Amino acid sequence: MPHSQFSWTSPPKNALVVKKPNDVQTTEMMPRVVDMLARNDVEAWVEPAVHWETGLGKTWAQDDDPRLDGVIDFIVCLGGDGTILWVLNLFPKSVPPVVSFGMGSLGFLTSFSRESIPRVVDDVVKGDFVFTLRSRLVAHVVKADGSEERRRHIVLNEVVIDRGANSTLIDLDVNIDGNPMTKVLADGVMISTPTGSTAYSLAAGGSMVHPGVSGVLFVPICPHTLSFRPLVLPDSVVLTIRVPESARVEPYASFDGKEQRCLKRGESLVVRGWRYPVPSICNSGESVDWFRAVKESLLWNVRGSMQKPY
Amino acid sequence: MPHSQFSWTSPPKNALVVKKPNDVQTTEMMPRVVDMLARNDVEAWVEPAVHWETGLGKTWAQDDDPRLDGVIDFIVCLGGDGTILWVLNLFPKSVPPVVSFGMGSLGFLTSFSRESIPRVVDDVVKGDFVFTLRSRLVAHVVKADGSEERRRHIVLNEVVIDRGANSTLIDLDVNIDGNPMTKVLADGVMISTPTGSTAYSLAAGGSMVHPGVSGVLFVPICPHTLSFRPLVLPDSVVLTIRVPESARVEPYASFDGKEQRCLKRGESLVVRGWRYPVPSICNSGESVDWFRAVKESLLWNVRGSMQKPY
Amino acid sequence: MPHSQFSWTSPPKNALVVKKPNDVQTTEMMPRVVDMLARNDVEAWVEPAVHWETGLGKTWAQDDDPRLDGVIDFIVCLGGDGTILWVLNLFPKSVPPVVSFGMGSLGFLTSFSRESIPRVVDDVVKGDFVFTLRSRLVAHVVKADGSEERRRHIVLNEVVIDRGANSTLIDLDVNIDGNPMTKVLADGVMISTPTGSTAYSLAAGGSMVHPGVSGVLFVPICPHTLSFRPLVLPDSVVLTIRVPESARVEPYASFDGKEQRCLKRGESLVVRGWRYPVPSICNSGESVDWFRAVKESLLWNVRGSMQKPY
Amino acid sequence: MPHSQFSWTSPPKNALVVKKPNDVQTTEMMPRVVDMLARNDVEAWVEPAVHWETGLGKTWAQDDDPRLDGVIDFIVCLGGDGTILWVLNLFPKSVPPVVSFGMGSLGFLTSFSRESIPRVVDDVVKGDFVFTLRSRLVAHVVKADGSEERRRHIVLNEVVIDRGANSTLIDLDVNIDGNPMTKVLADGVMISTPTGSTAYSLAAGGSMVHPGVSGVLFVPICPHTLSFRPLVLPDSVVLTIRVPESARVEPYASFDGKEQRCLKRGESLVVRGWRYPVPSICNSGESVDWFRAVKESLLWNVRGSMQKPY
Repeated sequence: MPHSQFSWTSPPKNALVVKKPNDVQTTEMMPRVVDMLARNDVEAWVEPAVHWETGLGKTWAQDDDPRLDGVIDFIVCLGGDGTILWVLNLFPKSVPPVVSFGMGSLGFLTSFSRESIPRVVDDVVKGDFVFTLRSRLVAHVVKADGSEERRRHIVLNEVVIDRGANSTLIDLDVNIDGNPMTKVLADGVMISTPTGSTAYSLAAGGSMVHPGVSGVLFVPICPHTLSFRPLVLPDSVVLTIRVPESARVEPYASFDGKEQRCLKRGESLVVRGWRYPVPSICNSGESVDWFRAVKESLLWNVRGSMQKPY
Repeated sequence: MPHSQFSWTSPPKNALVVKKPNDVQTTEMMPRVVDMLARNDVEAWVEPAVHWETGLGKTWAQDDDPRLDGVIDFIVCLGGDGTILWVLNLFPKSVPPVVSFGMGSLGFLTSFSRESIPRVVDDVVKGDFVFTLRSRLVAHVVKADGSEERRRHIVLNEVVIDRGANSTLIDLDVNIDGNPMTKVLADGVMISTPTGSTAYSLAAGGSMVHPGVSGVLFVPICPHTLSFRPLVLPDSVVLTIRVPESARVEPYASFDGKEQRCLKRGESLVVRGWRYPVPSICNSGESVDWFRAVKESLLWNVRGSMQKPY
Repeated sequence: MPHSQFSWTSPPKNALVVKKPNDVQTTEMMPRVVDMLARNDVEAWVEPAVHWETGLGKTWAQDDDPRLDGVIDFIVCLGGDGTILWVLNLFPKSVPPVVSFGMGSLGFLTSFSRESIPRVVDDVVKGDFVFTLRSRLVAHVVKADGSEERRRHIVLNEVVIDRGANSTLIDLDVNIDGNPMTKVLADGVMISTPTGSTAYSLAAGGSMVHPGVSGVLFVPICPHTLSFRPLVLPDSVVLTIRVPESARVEPYASFDGKEQRCLKRGESLVVRGWRYPVPSICNSGESVDWFRAVKESLLWNVRGSMQKPY
Repeated sequence: MPHSQFSWTSPPKNALVVKKPNDVQTTEMMPRVVDMLARNDVEAWVEPAVHWETGLGKTWAQDDDPRLDGVIDFIVCLGGDGTILWVLNLFPKSVPPVVSFGMGSLGFLTSFSRESIPRVVDDVVKGDFVFTLRSRLVAHVVKADGSEERRRHIVLNEVVIDRGANSTLIDLDVNIDGNPMTKVLADGVMISTPTGSTAYSLAAGGSMVHPGVSGVLFVPICPHTLSFRPLVLPDSVVLTIRVPESARVEPYASFDGKEQRCLKRGESLVVRGWRYPVPSICNSGESVDWFRAVKESLLWNVRGSMQKPY
């Protein structure tokens, strides 16, 4: 099942519109999108700061838990892959379908051009679209005394553990489903979703994994051994990455490139698949969109002047 | 679901015992295994040639279709990963559980030592085991005139298309689910299962994919571009690899390293997931067995003398 | 010394003009180049077949050893990197400066566009140019009985030993300066010059080596171990690659992609630096030309649409 | 010239003995080494701190420039590759021959076992040895206003510029011999000697370069493009790595893993070959020692249980 056809059980009533902050182009676009939604009997919600800035749409109190996942029927994203990562912070659990419009070039999560907004918004309201379910990961820290931190870190791209500003290698013990898996001596290691496989994982040498694959990538960053090939594991596994008591330095965990957190000696980070994926609305289908991005954005297997076919 | 628990609906009655050909050790082991099975009320079947050589067990007429998948309850394999690849030729469709004993070192498909034969055979007869479902691929040729060849090639490891003895690059057009995907200018390309990811795919630079992942690897062999990173795709995709009319050389397809076949200009090879996987009996669980093999057989992330932790 | 300034001790008198065979564009260009040379008091020589076809220039008897290296002052190459490889067969020992004009895109050895022919030919005649000395390798076979074959194979790019049409791995014992170095279990192995590092070696995963480095690359092709990282060795070493008596298959050696030759069990191929390099005339300097080709021809570190700087 | 034979013009009179700090084994070894030297009419020098701790040997005033390169005839190193990196700080310019003894496993710079100390010290005093000349690099900073810092950073392994604790990519403009070479968008980049090619460069994916090659490696660390293959350049080039005014973050330079220094926007780091290499005394010859280390320390092309030859 490379992608899924969608249908609304009842017409959508509420859409969250998010935009790249401090960006003139998307700010100008906002009122037009709110209008289009209104003409389709869909109420536009915006984040408190945007509401304050623009006066547009409905919003919620900054310090309230808006429980948006019970209200919002779909999300309209203006601005690019970074904006989607941002809005997902508001949806730690179930996520409504996301449609994303790029202002310049398209990306992996951003499949539609700004020119197509009116047509696509219409289609979304009608339920005439397909989507990819993009898997996420959840991570939490287990303290040296065995107690679990309550804070859950949810990522769409990857969890990274690296040496931060330290100049020495980090040293980590990795378990899989409770069994010893390997020891990492490296600049770092990352656990990535298929979505993350075209982000930082790529730079570290991981394979590119289509978002339709149910897997997680285990990719070392500058490993100390010649034989530390990256792995793809089932997304049902639980990985526990522990800083041994003997570690020379204390590494840093980061989540989708944000929220750096030092892991103390004896602490572990537990990473597993998260049961709430992100339904990301496709333009021309899951595979077609992905290969378009893989080629345009990353020049995957694109040939130079000497590499033309005969 | 990293591995599956098994139970017999009725006690097993027939087991196929296969062995590495021309190997003294496994030949000596055969009568003892047949005996053990008999004591468990399981009749041993052997291949015609082995029956002729040893007089052991039941067999079938060489030129008959033995329809073994309706008869055999499980397979006992003596000799290594190559022997398993061989016996699978007898089971193009559904495959009974396979238990494999290595004579020397263990492998990816061969999880048990010869010393454990009595205990493990008992456990298998009792239904006291877990297994991995190892996915397979099926490939067939579409002729230049659009007609389909009836011959199906089924692989556990990989389908390779390469230049054979030609000294020039091959040139292939790849489609995914009917859409253009990329052009391959390389020594070759392979489509591999997770099982195959630790075989030839590894040599070509592919990631290592756990057998519990539902994916296929698309791995170039010595590609002509710097950016041709290997891919992991969902195993639901259909890949069509076509030799263009303008190709300078005609490449060769091979299936699990066997059955070389020239692909003519205009011909395509269609590769997809096969609906009959191989239930491969685990020793200590799917992940534990796999990481054991990954480390012992491939020295994955094993450190040398300068690479000890502090 | 990234490149060398040149000066003629006496004005050049004879130039060899070579062209890509069966190519309309270069054939039309020939008479004009012969003319330009004549106006500079330089006599044009052409290969016998070209002389027979065009009536242009001086030539030599097909079955004669023309001893061109004593006659020809410089070589004008019309057509591309392949044409240079070809003409070097006529200059196994010392090679006069080579200036190469591409008909379409430029390459690593082809630094000048067709539009610049008049100006560049003038400069070459005046001795107003710089050149790169491109190193070559020489290889010969030692038979199983220890006797040496007289035939010397001289390459500008690489010597490859691979499995040819065999479907099994090859097995080679490599010595360096008479000492055991390693065993190769792989599809093949290549010894490449820096010039060859941007050709087949690149596809096999070798680093890119600037032509000003005095080194040879030792690059495995699809190796059987995870840890077989490519090497760069001094070009003073002598590498002896031997097919052991126990080898399952007999591999094939090829030289600049040509002249396939089976290596029998017990035979060795001895490869070392060749003392006659190729003076290749630069356009904008050795490094500038190389980086131009690296980027245009191979898209080295060229960014796609998502990879623009901020 | 894979290695060089040595001879003293007059008998050596002074040797510097250095040891790994805070290491019982090497501390116990010191007096015996000082004795052996004395019996050979060689005076032992030690660092001030070691002299203060052990009372052994001659030394110099801590805050004096000891001008050791005019006094010391050879260096005896007890303890490993890290100890050699340390002692080289005392020899920014010409370096006397270094003989290094490992306490446990040997390394790339440490070719002798502790058991061989008496014999090897005798041989060194007699001038009966061969050595490798290990090249070094020198780097200095050019300020945004064009002024040059006086401080020279000399490295035996590598110069690294990376993002430090920043979570964003760094952005660098690289020039070669004054010409634009490329833009780096990556976690970092390193310029490494052949000696450094088996250290951090290896982890970042660089080829392994024999110490007899006159080259420098240019290796990206987690680059943002798929096509950023590592390079080997002549050691005659001058590389200028500049932080553009528009850079989002200010990167950190480090030198042999030490002396981190922030590079401000507009600043450049200039890196070139250093004219004072390190004569490192070989055990069994340059190549034999190197391949021994490459195999023992890094398990280069070492096979696991499934990878034995047939």
